[in-house]
Amino acid sequence: MKPALNASQLLDFIETKSKAEILDFCTTTHPVEAAEIISALPAEEAWEILKHLSPSLQAEIFSHLWDGLQIALASIMGKGDFARVLSEMSSDDRATLYKKIPPEQQEGVLPALAQAEREDIRRLSKHEEGTAGAAMTSDYAALAPELTAAQSIERLRMVAPDKETIYYAYVVDEQRKLIGFVSLKDLILARREARISDIMHSDVIYARVDEDQEEAARKIQKYDLIALPVINGNDALMGIITHDDAMDIITQEHTEDMEKFMAIAGSHESISYLHTSAIDHFKKRAVWIIALAALGLVSGYVVQSFENLLVQFAILASFMPMLADTGGNTGSQSATLVVRALALGEIRARDTLKIVAKEFAVAMPLALLLGVVAFGRVFLFGTGNLLANNISPFMLATAVAIALGLQVVTATIIGAVLPLMASGLKLDPAVVASPALTTVVDVTGLLIYFSTVKFLLGI
Amino acid sequence: MKPALNASQLLDFIETKSKAEILDFCTTTHPVEAAEIISALPAEEAWEILKHLSPSLQAEIFSHLWDGLQIALASIMGKGDFARVLSEMSSDDRATLYKKIPPEQQEGVLPALAQAEREDIRRLSKHEEGTAGAAMTSDYAALAPELTAAQSIERLRMVAPDKETIYYAYVVDEQRKLIGFVSLKDLILARREARISDIMHSDVIYARVDEDQEEAARKIQKYDLIALPVINGNDALMGIITHDDAMDIITQEHTEDMEKFMAIAGSHESISYLHTSAIDHFKKRAVWIIALAALGLVSGYVVQSFENLLVQFAILASFMPMLADTGGNTGSQSATLVVRALALGEIRARDTLKIVAKEFAVAMPLALLLGVVAFGRVFLFGTGNLLANNISPFMLATAVAIALGLQVVTATIIGAVLPLMASGLKLDPAVVASPALTTVVDVTGLLIYFSTVKFLLGI
Repeated sequence: MKPALNASQLLDFIETKSKAEILDFCTTTHPVEAAEIISALPAEEAWEILKHLSPSLQAEIFSHLWDGLQIALASIMGKGDFARVLSEMSSDDRATLYKKIPPEQQEGVLPALAQAEREDIRRLSKHEEGTAGAAMTSDYAALAPELTAAQSIERLRMVAPDKETIYYAYVVDEQRKLIGFVSLKDLILARREARISDIMHSDVIYARVDEDQEEAARKIQKYDLIALPVINGNDALMGIITHDDAMDIITQEHTEDMEKFMAIAGSHESISYLHTSAIDHFKKRAVWIIALAALGLVSGYVVQSFENLLVQFAILASFMPMLADTGGNTGSQSATLVVRALALGEIRARDTLKIVAKEFAVAMPLALLLGVVAFGRVFLFGTGNLLANNISPFMLATAVAIALGLQVVTATIIGAVLPLMASGLKLDPAVVASPALTTVVDVTGLLIYFSTVKFLLGI
Repeated sequence: MKPALNASQLLDFIETKSKAEILDFCTTTHPVEAAEIISALPAEEAWEILKHLSPSLQAEIFSHLWDGLQIALASIMGKGDFARVLSEMSSDDRATLYKKIPPEQQEGVLPALAQAEREDIRRLSKHEEGTAGAAMTSDYAALAPELTAAQSIERLRMVAPDKETIYYAYVVDEQRKLIGFVSLKDLILARREARISDIMHSDVIYARVDEDQEEAARKIQKYDLIALPVINGNDALMGIITHDDAMDIITQEHTEDMEKFMAIAGSHESISYLHTSAIDHFKKRAVWIIALAALGLVSGYVVQSFENLLVQFAILASFMPMLADTGGNTGSQSATLVVRALALGEIRARDTLKIVAKEFAVAMPLALLLGVVAFGRVFLFGTGNLLANNISPFMLATAVAIALGLQVVTATIIGAVLPLMASGLKLDPAVVASPALTTVVDVTGLLIYFSTVKFLLGI
């Protein structure tokens, strides 16, 4: 037994060990750890180590390397070596990698592969990225309904080395139509001569090839499955998604949701922070920031239209940041909760009324409390050039408190309603990014603020 | 085969069906779906349906009900019925529920349970919430090293009904020390008479009982495991965490991270949005909002200290929102990426220099671009009462553009560095919440803004 190496131990390892020692480590450790070490190396050095390993170990480590290194390796490895690794890789990893390499390399490597592998790659790589079809593997175990339990176990034993899992086996008819499934546990518990058709579960949870991969992964999570079968329009079994891939999909979708919600343009690629170049980072972020800065014109315009008020009472400007920030904060909070609850399937667009009622119930006491805070703040610290104009600090404090209260209530409701509207329009609720929301409630907040002040102070 | 019911179909189902039809549905459908239906009912009605089911089905549905309903049911079911459900539940779900019911009910139900179950509950429920120990189940399969493969399969077959999984079996010595593991696939592929000690993998990936549950779940994800053994300080096997629980842990931790990052006070409970009362929603959100509003005093103070400037040039106030928002947005973006990369273990505090360099490389072109946008905006729209004071729109536009550029660079760096500092101090990086960051960069931004303007316009 040994604990896994952590990231800083890995780095020390690479810095202090010779190539021979790293090679030795890679052959004896878990392939996932070997891949972590090798991922920290440039492609040439990585290949120096990989080329000494057996094709099956090469393939296993290869599958766990980061995308950029896989692609770089593909171009320096030589057609024959690359084809050997490809044919040893699991079918889903192979198809994913195939889609990423340049077209001329794709065409170069195909003739070096066996006929069956070529077809498998073509079949799997035609599905659109982000669908269940693109996430599935064709290395599943299938059984005919007329087999006995003992025959089935023998069959699973024979095919085990080439399958991603033998713990779930899928029962198909002559047209490969999915008609049921059995677990290896079912088979072991059944009488040896029991027929698959008698012991199989015919209520199978499945995904369609064109279904969103996240939806498929959520089924694996909801029903505690080890694998989920993926079928086409004719109900024919095309592949399976395994629990470990489902977990990776869910993690990747988390990252995407979080980035989208924070106004970072997403992609279906999952490249780590440090492996992403500054230019790609810039591309992911600039669009939204520029768009929002342009949208900021509107709030600037609102302020400008109340310029006369500000010329008279410059002190009013000092409450703008608190008002804007508090609106942004309460709006972002309600939006976060609603976006997450929508993502987890806890609520739907048709719950809008219930949600607005709840948000209102939360916002009211918050508005009261904040109103008191604001009143105290203005009354104690905010005097400025007001008194000269015959307006008492008490009046100003009241106006600011009321404006802040109104801002909190509207921002909270807007934050909850916008993602629900997006969901109702079949858009991803996370497109209502928190920064966009902040900009929107800035505008509403400033309008509320200046109007309230104008009205209450009678200017 | 049938597709799973979606949430709105469920609601229709409850509204239109009689109790007898719901009961019929619950006995024939997947327990997860039965639990979804029943979770939408009040406790009394839920029990009306549950009480007609077999104890094992009751237990299975019960495990999937939401926490509040489980607790409500525990109090109306009667000691005997509740004890029967508890003893049928898997050991981890049972211990989790036990910890949630009031002490007098805990004491009431214990005598109605068998000795072994009582001890199991006591053992499991003593671990602190959020640790691997609290997440593990004691329903694992263990094997002695001297067994043969055939004997082991026979043993797994016998214990299968009571175990969460028989696909991984753990090898322990006489002191229950974990010395290896075998998968059911290994056993099926091995010769019948092969010894476990010869075929077992002795490099076992494991977690300690007091380890963070998220760390344990991430190991399951990283190494593509079906289950992870949990050992105590003496290396004795205490339980396992299964892949499905790991997925739930990762989802729950993601919700917590997202809420924490958006300044919503978290908890280890996972109650859905609609099941959380308005008061609890208020409690989760108010603390941060009030604290941040109070912190907003500082930015108010900054503005106030430049009041004379504003009295002369009220137009300056109209650029405050864009400046504050853009700083908040760029800072939140870099913070989001860094917090997520830290959570996924892609970067560490010692990478700070590399990260700052990258963020600087991203922020510079962004600052330039935004500077141009701001310049255009001021030059085109921002005239106000400036010209009267002999300051050209060109000068003002230059000042605002430079201030915005500086604000973008500092905000981006602050957003990246604060979570790294938190991580270096062994704090959760997500404590550097995006709203808190927004408030911080408001202050720095306003200082930069007014100082730049003062300096460049020579006022």
